[in-house]
This record gives sequence, C-alpha cells and structure tokens, in this order.
Amino acid sequence: MKTVLAYSGGLDSTVLLYHLVAEGGVVSALSVNYGQRHQRELDSARAIATRLGLPHKTIDLSSLGKLLEGCSLTNPDLPMPQGHYAEPSMKATVVPNRNMLFLALAASWAISLGADTVSYAAHSGDHAIYPDCRETFAQALDNAIRLADWREIRLNRPFVHLDKGAIVERGATLGVPFARTWSCYEGGQFHCGRCGTCIERREAFHRAGVEDPTLYASDSPSIDAMIAKNWRL
Amino acid sequence: MKTVLAYSGGLDSTVLLYHLVAEGGVVSALSVNYGQRHQRELDSARAIATRLGLPHKTIDLSSLGKLLEGCSLTNPDLPMPQGHYAEPSMKATVVPNRNMLFLALAASWAISLGADTVSYAAHSGDHAIYPDCRETFAQALDNAIRLADWREIRLNRPFVHLDKGAIVERGATLGVPFARTWSCYEGGQFHCGRCGTCIERREAFHRAGVEDPTLYASDSPSIDAMIAKNWRL
Repeated sequence: MKTVLAYSGGLDSTVLLYHLVAEGGVVSALSVNYGQRHQRELDSARAIATRLGLPHKTIDLSSLGKLLEGCSLTNPDLPMPQGHYAEPSMKATVVPNRNMLFLALAASWAISLGADTVSYAAHSGDHAIYPDCRETFAQALDNAIRLADWREIRLNRPFVHLDKGAIVERGATLGVPFARTWSCYEGGQFHCGRCGTCIERREAFHRAGVEDPTLYASDSPSIDAMIAKNWRL
Repeated sequence: MKTVLAYSGGLDSTVLLYHLVAEGGVVSALSVNYGQRHQRELDSARAIATRLGLPHKTIDLSSLGKLLEGCSLTNPDLPMPQGHYAEPSMKATVVPNRNMLFLALAASWAISLGADTVSYAAHSGDHAIYPDCRETFAQALDNAIRLADWREIRLNRPFVHLDKGAIVERGATLGVPFARTWSCYEGGQFHCGRCGTCIERREAFHRAGVEDPTLYASDSPSIDAMIAKNWRL
C-alpha cells in the first residue's frame, strides 16, 4: 500500500502511522495548520514522522479561521469548553467540514505521488456532535475521492471498528511513543487534563490498562475518579 | 437562495455571480490563492465583488504547491503550455483535486453562514483532461457535501448545460464587466492570447457574437483565423 496519512500528531493518527508502517505501507504524512490553538500537535507530528524517517509536510491553511465563527478551536477569544464530549458545549469545537478539507488535501498529494489510498484514523468512538464523522459521510467522500483522478484512490480507515482503548492497546504493541503525541485542545505547555480530548485520552489509557505517560497540568483526583467510575475499573 | 460561490474572478464565475444576484440570491464569494501564477484573477474577483457590494473572502492556500509536482499553474519554473485544451500538453495545467478543495472550503463557509448551497460555474465545455470536471465526480461530491453538516447543503451548478459561448451571451444580457474579469494562466499585464484559457475565452466571444473587450498581448491574426475556422464564423 502506498498511502498519504492525514496526520495530526495526536494519539489515534500516531498509532495509525506506526500501524501502517508495520504493515509494510509506503507512508507519507500530511499535517494541516488550520489556525488551531493547539499548534503543538504540529510539532509532535513533525518530530514523530522525522523519527520514523518518513516524508512529512505541513500545509498552511491558517486563514481558514476567516470562514468560521463561533469555533473555539480557531478563535482564541472564545472559551474552550471543558468536560466530556457528550456535553452540548462541545459543539464549539466543531470546525465545519474539517474532514473533507483535510482528506481533500491528502488526496491532492496522493494523486501527485501516485499513492493508492488516503488513510485517516476514524474510529468507533468518533463523536455524534461531528456530522463529518458519520459513516454515511465517509462512504460518500470515499466515492468522491475515487473519482477525483483517473486512477482510483480509496479512503483507508483500518481503525474504524476499534475504540480508543483498543487503539492505545495497538499502540503499546507497536512501541508508539505516546508521551510525544499531542491531544489537548488548549495547546499549553502540558496537556490541560480537562478539555474533551484530554478526558478522552485519559479514558483510553484507563480502558486499555496501559500506563498513561502524559503530563497533565490538572491531575485532578476528581477527574480520575469520574473516568474510573465511567469505565468501572 | 443563500449561497457561497467558488469565485475565481474569471469569465464563467463572474457571469454566474451576476446571474445569482439577478435571481435574487444572497451571495457570498470565496476566492482561493493556491499559488497560481495568475494571481491577477484574485484582484479581479475582489474588485468585482466589491463593485457589487457582496461579501468576498480570499483563502490563502498558497502552500498547496508543496504537494504538487509537474503542475505549471503553480510552478513558475515549468513552461506554460500554449494552444488548445484538447492538446495533451495541457495536462500540465491540472491541479490535482482542485475542485474538491475549493468546494470543500466554500462548504465550510456555507455551514458557518447558514447558506443552503455552494455554487460554481461548471459548464458543458469543461474539459476531458480534468477528472474532477466529470459529471460523476460532481454528483459524488454533491452527496458528500450534503452530509458534511446536519443541515443539508447542495451543490448548485446552474450553467452545467451551457457552453462558454452561451455563458458570454448570458453575461452580456446581465451587463457583466467582461474587461475586468481575468482568465489568462500566464498572469502577465495583459491576457497572453495564446494559452488554453485565453483561446477558450476568445472562442467564447466569437461564438456568442459579442464583442471581446479583452486586451490580448498576442493579437495574432493566425489565432483569430483558427478560432473563426473552428466556429465557422
């Protein structure tokens, strides 16, 4: 398989990067600067891809914020919601049509490289607040990407039936340097430990029974208790 | 209709802009700087949208060139092919997956604005060298964009059954300021008159029987003769 991976530098896509390499794939990794507060993820992406000796490029789409209103991920004047993804406040983290944008960029590079797939780390825990995480959307986009060039390019989503805990398990087997990945939406010096993506990250390590090497700014016992209770550890 | 128009500042999309406004549409116009040599089209887009008092934004995607090789539209070191689109050399003007990229950006803005459609100036003369000008691609992308948000957004292609001559006719009726639009891939001070898009522009005015106000650097009688012969004027 010759593939372009939509690569954020986060937990899921880093495990997918290692997974694709382990499967013998010829992998190029594409990251996107869309003006996200957590630009640290781009540093993680570059560092990890370099460590693996893989081609990695970052596309500057930081002017995307001009088109978005009310998105706390790209507007530093808005508060970043805390708590679990299930909460309505998390809708402020939706970047409209983000998946199509990133995968369209990855498809452009895939066409140029003569790759046969575009890979991304869709998983079974993707959230109901994101319309472009729906299975129907992924299938429709696959159909469109197949027709974007004369040569057929497919979407590759090998983790689509795994939950985030299973992804951590897979990552542990592959020797993924979890501590070098970045998830937190706040983009501070350490993971905040309280935003939706931090809570999800902590939950995933709990579920997998894998030690979480992440340094959280907020190592609140109450969050650990909530996570432990949710997962009945 | 509340719509976001993928707006290049060229002939077709400017006529579509005027058409949508004439039909009573609430129109926002989106241009993309993708590192094209002919950045002059972006000046045309801004000037014409401003003249109409419409919201207009330009997204900077100039780093796209990093993903493309062999594309003369974004690489000034490559020669720009001259002559008719039908010629094989014109493949150097293909920007892989450009339509999906531009329409995905327009859809992002459409979601933010609460618009119901994304419009673009697909027409019956779109060229066989561009895979993403195929009807099957447009239909697949329409299906994907419909699912990109909870609210359905559709692709709107009112010129899809018109040829470029008919678009010029429509533009003449609407009072489109043709001389302010920009087509030429070379992006010089004047339209070169020889590249694929210049020849197509000249042909369209011939076909429509509308006076062409464009200043061509190369007002070659041989090109005029070729166009007249092709269209049996």
